[in-house]
Amino acid sequence: MSEGPAREHRLVLFASDNYAGVYPAVLASIAAANGGFAPAYGDDDWTLALQERMREVFGDVDVFPVFNGTGGNVTALATVMQPFEAVICAETAHINVDECGAPERFTGGKLVDLPTPDGKLTPELVRGALVGSGDQHHVQTRVVSITQPTELGTVYTPGETSALAAVAHAAGLLLHVDGARLVNAAVGLGTGLREITADCGVDVLTFGGTKNGLLGGEAVVFFRHDLAERYLFVRKQGMQLASKMRFVSAQLLRLLEGELWRETAGHANAMAQRLAAAAASVPGVRVAYPVQANAVFVALPAPVTERLLEDYRFYTWDEQTGVVRWMCSWQTTPDDVDRLASALRDAVASA
Amino acid sequence: MSEGPAREHRLVLFASDNYAGVYPAVLASIAAANGGFAPAYGDDDWTLALQERMREVFGDVDVFPVFNGTGGNVTALATVMQPFEAVICAETAHINVDECGAPERFTGGKLVDLPTPDGKLTPELVRGALVGSGDQHHVQTRVVSITQPTELGTVYTPGETSALAAVAHAAGLLLHVDGARLVNAAVGLGTGLREITADCGVDVLTFGGTKNGLLGGEAVVFFRHDLAERYLFVRKQGMQLASKMRFVSAQLLRLLEGELWRETAGHANAMAQRLAAAAASVPGVRVAYPVQANAVFVALPAPVTERLLEDYRFYTWDEQTGVVRWMCSWQTTPDDVDRLASALRDAVASA
Amino acid sequence: MSEGPAREHRLVLFASDNYAGVYPAVLASIAAANGGFAPAYGDDDWTLALQERMREVFGDVDVFPVFNGTGGNVTALATVMQPFEAVICAETAHINVDECGAPERFTGGKLVDLPTPDGKLTPELVRGALVGSGDQHHVQTRVVSITQPTELGTVYTPGETSALAAVAHAAGLLLHVDGARLVNAAVGLGTGLREITADCGVDVLTFGGTKNGLLGGEAVVFFRHDLAERYLFVRKQGMQLASKMRFVSAQLLRLLEGELWRETAGHANAMAQRLAAAAASVPGVRVAYPVQANAVFVALPAPVTERLLEDYRFYTWDEQTGVVRWMCSWQTTPDDVDRLASALRDAVASA
Amino acid sequence: MSEGPAREHRLVLFASDNYAGVYPAVLASIAAANGGFAPAYGDDDWTLALQERMREVFGDVDVFPVFNGTGGNVTALATVMQPFEAVICAETAHINVDECGAPERFTGGKLVDLPTPDGKLTPELVRGALVGSGDQHHVQTRVVSITQPTELGTVYTPGETSALAAVAHAAGLLLHVDGARLVNAAVGLGTGLREITADCGVDVLTFGGTKNGLLGGEAVVFFRHDLAERYLFVRKQGMQLASKMRFVSAQLLRLLEGELWRETAGHANAMAQRLAAAAASVPGVRVAYPVQANAVFVALPAPVTERLLEDYRFYTWDEQTGVVRWMCSWQTTPDDVDRLASALRDAVASA
Repeated sequence: MSEGPAREHRLVLFASDNYAGVYPAVLASIAAANGGFAPAYGDDDWTLALQERMREVFGDVDVFPVFNGTGGNVTALATVMQPFEAVICAETAHINVDECGAPERFTGGKLVDLPTPDGKLTPELVRGALVGSGDQHHVQTRVVSITQPTELGTVYTPGETSALAAVAHAAGLLLHVDGARLVNAAVGLGTGLREITADCGVDVLTFGGTKNGLLGGEAVVFFRHDLAERYLFVRKQGMQLASKMRFVSAQLLRLLEGELWRETAGHANAMAQRLAAAAASVPGVRVAYPVQANAVFVALPAPVTERLLEDYRFYTWDEQTGVVRWMCSWQTTPDDVDRLASALRDAVASA
Repeated sequence: MSEGPAREHRLVLFASDNYAGVYPAVLASIAAANGGFAPAYGDDDWTLALQERMREVFGDVDVFPVFNGTGGNVTALATVMQPFEAVICAETAHINVDECGAPERFTGGKLVDLPTPDGKLTPELVRGALVGSGDQHHVQTRVVSITQPTELGTVYTPGETSALAAVAHAAGLLLHVDGARLVNAAVGLGTGLREITADCGVDVLTFGGTKNGLLGGEAVVFFRHDLAERYLFVRKQGMQLASKMRFVSAQLLRLLEGELWRETAGHANAMAQRLAAAAASVPGVRVAYPVQANAVFVALPAPVTERLLEDYRFYTWDEQTGVVRWMCSWQTTPDDVDRLASALRDAVASA
Repeated sequence: MSEGPAREHRLVLFASDNYAGVYPAVLASIAAANGGFAPAYGDDDWTLALQERMREVFGDVDVFPVFNGTGGNVTALATVMQPFEAVICAETAHINVDECGAPERFTGGKLVDLPTPDGKLTPELVRGALVGSGDQHHVQTRVVSITQPTELGTVYTPGETSALAAVAHAAGLLLHVDGARLVNAAVGLGTGLREITADCGVDVLTFGGTKNGLLGGEAVVFFRHDLAERYLFVRKQGMQLASKMRFVSAQLLRLLEGELWRETAGHANAMAQRLAAAAASVPGVRVAYPVQANAVFVALPAPVTERLLEDYRFYTWDEQTGVVRWMCSWQTTPDDVDRLASALRDAVASA
Repeated sequence: MSEGPAREHRLVLFASDNYAGVYPAVLASIAAANGGFAPAYGDDDWTLALQERMREVFGDVDVFPVFNGTGGNVTALATVMQPFEAVICAETAHINVDECGAPERFTGGKLVDLPTPDGKLTPELVRGALVGSGDQHHVQTRVVSITQPTELGTVYTPGETSALAAVAHAAGLLLHVDGARLVNAAVGLGTGLREITADCGVDVLTFGGTKNGLLGGEAVVFFRHDLAERYLFVRKQGMQLASKMRFVSAQLLRLLEGELWRETAGHANAMAQRLAAAAASVPGVRVAYPVQANAVFVALPAPVTERLLEDYRFYTWDEQTGVVRWMCSWQTTPDDVDRLASALRDAVASA
């Protein structure tokens, strides 16, 4: 099995940041954790160390490694809500469109999804959705869930997140952050991780690692101890309890060690900026959303998209507007970017 | 972090086979799969190769990697049953006692658990539980689920499995095998994997790798194409869809390559035999169940257990009878076994 | 306990059509069914007769009485869909806003709710929501559900329903009708019940009785035998199996007998027309939606609404637009209507 | 439709107590509640009066009418437990064998069912099932649920119920009573309703009416206000919210009025005693369980059962032991009983 695209001759690297492999230092951390026997299910040194390191980063949190982002989001939500409760989210939220109904099936509750111009909820949007409180016919809103950065590559400023937390808390709700790419947001904002979570009033976070160089590993982070009380059972019942957890924890630990994430996410974001700049300079190409993390959305004429799809695999986000998505990762090279930009220019020229 | 017990001075290695690490060749297979970009979510060369290799092993199956055993069992069951249906299993089954209600919560259905002397269902037991068919007040039995080897370390012979399949099929039911340690059963029986599954009429299998040297990886295997039709969606909704699936598939592939599993499971089983033999020779110690895979259950006087627990971590399986469980793994050494046996002799002598 | 408002001095009758009592002939049918012993759970003469009568009305259907509308809708949907599947409905649909998340919790699936101008789905809206088919990340659309008449008092013409059925069937989906007030729609359209269901290609119907003079009783009606196969178990597991079912069936039977529903619904619709006409003649009052069944929605200035709420109980449907809802029932009298109209005129005059 | 058996020539009356009709005074209470308009969904005078009357009977309780026993049990349990929690019950419990998996599907949790000699849990049985507390792999026991009287017609004395409450509370659990026939137990014990519930430490009760002369109506009764806080939403999401609730409440109210239940249950129990006495006097017939309420279980030779089934419909409870069940109701007459007894004598004589 050779490097590169499988069973097809197109370059797949811009399709998703989880098409990238494992960052070398992360792979090394797995090997290093493989010394001998260690207790399973989280009762190991690496998970303990992760908990400690996470507290240095985020404050007095409770941290639980899980397998994947969907698992993290769903078990986090299921822990803090009842089946008759609801989650307000953006229409474009991963929990709403990319988790095959897992949130509904596992929590029993409802997602109230709101259209947004750029993937971001606002206090106004949230307030408008706060209906039916106390009405037995109606689901009871319990959580506001945002994705940071959003599925459209935009980020919430600390002020924006704080404002949402304020609205949520004022209404007796919790603020959940789907942070599958939280580190890309932090890099994009030039902040640390605490400044965009704990300091803003976030209550529970799904912290992502897989899209930033891990083989596989995310963590559910509770910013209030009382919210975490039932989590061990929800994680197990949610099929997210890793037996050899040390290898998940070791990866997450490595990502935090020396802030390695600044390197992986910094590189990915820089590649996105390079790509966006190149794309923006091509006549007829419009960058659809502010490029604030590692995603680049551009509106392309249909023939251009068709031409590019002959050589590249990527996703069309909106058939109507012709917006496509290109993702950059820790493994994307400047040369990769330049070649896509060049192909774009050629495609536009020949279209 | 050094080899050995974490945060305690007891030897943990006999507590569970998932306290062992990653088999070196399996770890190497992960590194080898890390060449560059590859499509996520199963659309990669390694997953394709796994599917092909599994068909060589099992026949015309459909294979889907998942994260862990609970996830495999639950999504497999949820795919082949409706929420008003039931699964017959042994009272000691992992799905019944060690999955925190995940089968019930995710399938919506019911487990009908039957007491057994040795962890094994029999045709008689199953037939006795076939009640209420067509009665709207009663769950409708849909699946017979067995664990191979059982949670008590016993194995079903091909004849026994075939007989259960016959009873199940005659009643319009399916036979599911929780094969978290299936390879240990095959080694114990001196057979291949197909002889104890496809050839016996098994309909769906959870094939385990983690307990035999993988970092983490299991697979759901359907022996009938029609049963697999909905699985992609159930796996995703069941939060068991790995994004970087190539790394799960590469591990499973390696376990099957050159029948590596004969080495890992063979060693583990041999260590269990060695330990059982040593234990059986100690006066007052009774081996509680036939040692047919990699688990050793012995009945110990309470003071002996107490003494051993000072130096070793392991689980008491039955407080009443004093039966404790010792698990062996690919990583257990003869020296490890001999030291435990010696400690046992000492404990008995001083008790 | 005297006739009239309970524990308050406001007139409650326009708040909902289930504030009305039991139609005398329906009450008599309960008494008539009370002769002696009869098998429970549907194995009685009245339920058998209902099945036969329903087949005369709707064609070759399978019919199952249930307790209430939510129970009917949810068990109907749960029978024809898998937990990873989705239902397309109007944003205003009862299943979406008035069932406290019961559809999600019990089916495990997702509601994809679409904004509409008048509560009615259209082929264009449905086609626009048909996304993600075959994509494992995405719920799979299985059902289009419409309410007839809608929650806004509008009705689908047979042509409109047929067009939706055609779109649904072309995409491999089913068409479900929430017919809590189906008979009001039939009266409004001047048709029979079959013309707006079976003849249009409807696959499954929740047929309502409670809002048209029953003490309590609805029925799930399947227009394809294969869809009904699992229903007995879903109904029981859905807690909708009445033990003394004869009394539910007897009511439904009476509603169909001699087309009694034309009387109950005809009267309710006529009262709505009378009320709408009166309201439309008041300056500054706008009838918000076509009055095609027994609901009247009018946009009122806030002070007018406030004034009216002193004497009447009713629901404000949209705080922004000032639209309120008045429901008429079999029990509403012309005098009741005229008094409300008069109060409206007075309120407008004094505002 | 004439009085008596439907579509068969057998007498059905002993098959179940819900084969009986509506007690005349209860039917009259429905008619009396039909005076005019009344708010729906429980905001009516009858439901308010029921709440008040229930407080006189049971103490400071919160009471919520529901449609049926399964709905009452399941929503009660779902309110007081989390999906990862478990309910200990007798193997013969209605929730375990006669609700088609509704408890598992709706609560997400697990039933831990224990074999009993007579349908009754004991402190010893419960204590033996209290395993896995705090273990993330294991469901967490939350509720002990008993049926009073049991499905085998036996009753818990106040002392027995108190002892179970004590065990439950000591372990941090709640005690739930499935009281589908609670009034029959009270009559059997010669007590009031409070003496066998509130006074024993019961936390939540499903109070039955349908089997004692109601058309249909049960109530969930919480003996602690904090347990009831979420119930309105669980009832609605559980599809158990009656729109015209006044008619359910009026029935329950009538059953309590002047302790009418002493008459209905007293008569049913007396008929059971008469039947048991007659049966016990027949050679070769063994009364299988103490007759303490309105159920009579007798062990019959197979030919006797076969002969009786030609003329009577009833259920064989245990194929192995030949135990059959005969239920008596408010509507069973001494003559009915004497005829069955006579048929039994004849069947035995001719067998």
